[in-house]
Amino acid sequence: MALETLRLIIIVAEADIASRLTKELAQLGVLGSNTTAGKGSWRRALEGRGPQEWSGPTVRIEAVVSQSVAEAVLARLSQAWFPHYVVFAWVSDVGVQRPDKYA
Amino acid sequence: MALETLRLIIIVAEADIASRLTKELAQLGVLGSNTTAGKGSWRRALEGRGPQEWSGPTVRIEAVVSQSVAEAVLARLSQAWFPHYVVFAWVSDVGVQRPDKYA
Amino acid sequence: MALETLRLIIIVAEADIASRLTKELAQLGVLGSNTTAGKGSWRRALEGRGPQEWSGPTVRIEAVVSQSVAEAVLARLSQAWFPHYVVFAWVSDVGVQRPDKYA
Repeated sequence: MALETLRLIIIVAEADIASRLTKELAQLGVLGSNTTAGKGSWRRALEGRGPQEWSGPTVRIEAVVSQSVAEAVLARLSQAWFPHYVVFAWVSDVGVQRPDKYA
Repeated sequence: MALETLRLIIIVAEADIASRLTKELAQLGVLGSNTTAGKGSWRRALEGRGPQEWSGPTVRIEAVVSQSVAEAVLARLSQAWFPHYVVFAWVSDVGVQRPDKYA
Repeated sequence: MALETLRLIIIVAEADIASRLTKELAQLGVLGSNTTAGKGSWRRALEGRGPQEWSGPTVRIEAVVSQSVAEAVLARLSQAWFPHYVVFAWVSDVGVQRPDKYA
């Protein structure tokens, strides 16, 4: 079975910013995502504002996207979100059957 | 530490079909799975039935399987589920210590 | 965009042991994690104590860590947790922008 390789991006963020974050993802070209509620705890959650430890309710947003959309999302997170909010993100390759549903 | 490579399959689907989908996975050789409830939104969720946009409650089903079971699941999703329901699926490689628990 | 490769570790476990497990992860050098509640079902969930089938509430713990921390976690799971509890774990590579948040 031939699979096409796309990028999976996972974003874990403090729950309060979930809807703003999802809206911004759509503006950056993300065609869809799945969100699950959870809780998180990190020793290095914040960048340069007071204590770095953070625990609390989170959202986990998962989206399959093209390489260019993944780069746009990471660039935007790095510039506008990481400095101000508890946001983590990581990417990896995944295989899909219907790439036109995602990119 | 020696890890064995298996396939991780993630399925995100409209919540209504969760139990039927899980039952079918078992019939295809999936030995176990973890399911989390969430919500999703996609611009290209549906294949050829009216408007493609969809938002609503979802389930996220995650299973570690052999390559052959992964292929059987994807083939079945493609044939019987993608045309009729909101279902997304992607696969990737993962390393495990106890492959006999999964395959 | 330059990404650094780290290890993503996913642990799915019976919900009852969530807090003990998270505490142990911290002791092994995991700097943070995200946890989501779910439900799971496996035919080979238990190692050598009575029937192997298990279904019930689960937690899914996700952490991005260095290779050495990933190995320490897997070694500890293998030694102290797999023989006694319903615990599954798998690892894969992920790309991140800010590796110092994780390792």
